[in-house]
Amino acid sequence: MIEQQDKATIVVFSGDLDKVIACFNIALAAAAMGMPVKMYFTFWGLNVLKKDRGRIKSKGLMRNMLNMLNRGGVSRLHLSKFHMAGMGTWMMKKMMKEKNVLGIPEAIKLAKEMGVEFYACTTTLGIMAISKEDLIPGVDGYVGAATFVQEARESKLALFI
Amino acid sequence: MIEQQDKATIVVFSGDLDKVIACFNIALAAAAMGMPVKMYFTFWGLNVLKKDRGRIKSKGLMRNMLNMLNRGGVSRLHLSKFHMAGMGTWMMKKMMKEKNVLGIPEAIKLAKEMGVEFYACTTTLGIMAISKEDLIPGVDGYVGAATFVQEARESKLALFI
Amino acid sequence: MIEQQDKATIVVFSGDLDKVIACFNIALAAAAMGMPVKMYFTFWGLNVLKKDRGRIKSKGLMRNMLNMLNRGGVSRLHLSKFHMAGMGTWMMKKMMKEKNVLGIPEAIKLAKEMGVEFYACTTTLGIMAISKEDLIPGVDGYVGAATFVQEARESKLALFI
Repeated sequence: MIEQQDKATIVVFSGDLDKVIACFNIALAAAAMGMPVKMYFTFWGLNVLKKDRGRIKSKGLMRNMLNMLNRGGVSRLHLSKFHMAGMGTWMMKKMMKEKNVLGIPEAIKLAKEMGVEFYACTTTLGIMAISKEDLIPGVDGYVGAATFVQEARESKLALFI
Repeated sequence: MIEQQDKATIVVFSGDLDKVIACFNIALAAAAMGMPVKMYFTFWGLNVLKKDRGRIKSKGLMRNMLNMLNRGGVSRLHLSKFHMAGMGTWMMKKMMKEKNVLGIPEAIKLAKEMGVEFYACTTTLGIMAISKEDLIPGVDGYVGAATFVQEARESKLALFI
Repeated sequence: MIEQQDKATIVVFSGDLDKVIACFNIALAAAAMGMPVKMYFTFWGLNVLKKDRGRIKSKGLMRNMLNMLNRGGVSRLHLSKFHMAGMGTWMMKKMMKEKNVLGIPEAIKLAKEMGVEFYACTTTLGIMAISKEDLIPGVDGYVGAATFVQEARESKLALFI
């Protein structure tokens, strides 16, 4: 019998700015309480880990198209609602600054400083044509669903966002 | 070591009618089984707690624009798919009535009667320019992510919806 | 006091191809590790269980309209982003094949072979005008939210996707 430990495991599936903010708010709160925290980035969540500048050049037309459509990088995350060609997202970011809520780049930096571990899903990296070189430093490992399940069932807090 | 208790903790992130229905179905089922239930409303989920009538008047242009775009109130929740300028949402509500499924206003009332506790996220209230006066009665508290994490890790059931 | 068991309970709320892939990746990984797995299909997730061919004919105009709008069936699941009239979804499926990632029909087959149990939510079947005859074989039961809550609070891993 596996004993559950006081740790937090979060799947970051979404690349929507609002959901990513929620992921980091929860992750940082858990880390501040002394819980070991692991974040598993998959599908659109991988955009959080994509390097922000430059366009990814891959081999093959489809790979290039996928990366053109889905450029990723923290500065390109959108709200899930009211993005409105950037205006809604811009207003939200402005309100965050006014209310001293951390932006995603700052939240990533703080999370790494607090020991939050980042994992990228190998399966979705493959089908979204993203290579390890396209990701920011700070990724602690490349894993599949089995590693997530093993970790999540041992965690007192496991969320899919 | 914290022992997990037989209670349920639900983050209501979404303001989509279908997801909010799912939140209340789960919350009410858990409450009916005798589990203490806490619902944490954040981001678009705060629209469930927004007063239904009248327009929110805030100080400043951006605050007013945010509240105009995102009016909230239970009568304005939309389906995540097939809203179709209101027709899909209207059809779903009609089917709910026909099948004796509780609408959100009735679900809120029943939840409060059964002792389900409602919490509003202070951080997102701030960045969405919503003040406490804009919310319906029945909110049991205003808390941050740390309070949610503390509660969720002690709960046998914790969901993010 | 209920002791949590080493089993997995997943609510499949979404009918988006990408989220359904995530559901099955997690379910199959858990099953491969020997965990009993139960999947609860509700709302748009019911489209995964809808028969793929033929149009559902129901009594009444609204029922027919609902099933025409929301035809369902595994071959009609779309990406939550970049569907682009089918092109994005087609590209993703192509990448999945290239990377040997199981498509949904194959994942369903494998899940059933591994003993993963499928449950359909009776409440949402009702409000979406879907009858049991419209679903594929392999559904192990028709249940409400209470059955899910009972199962989820006893599971070491419970996710809402």
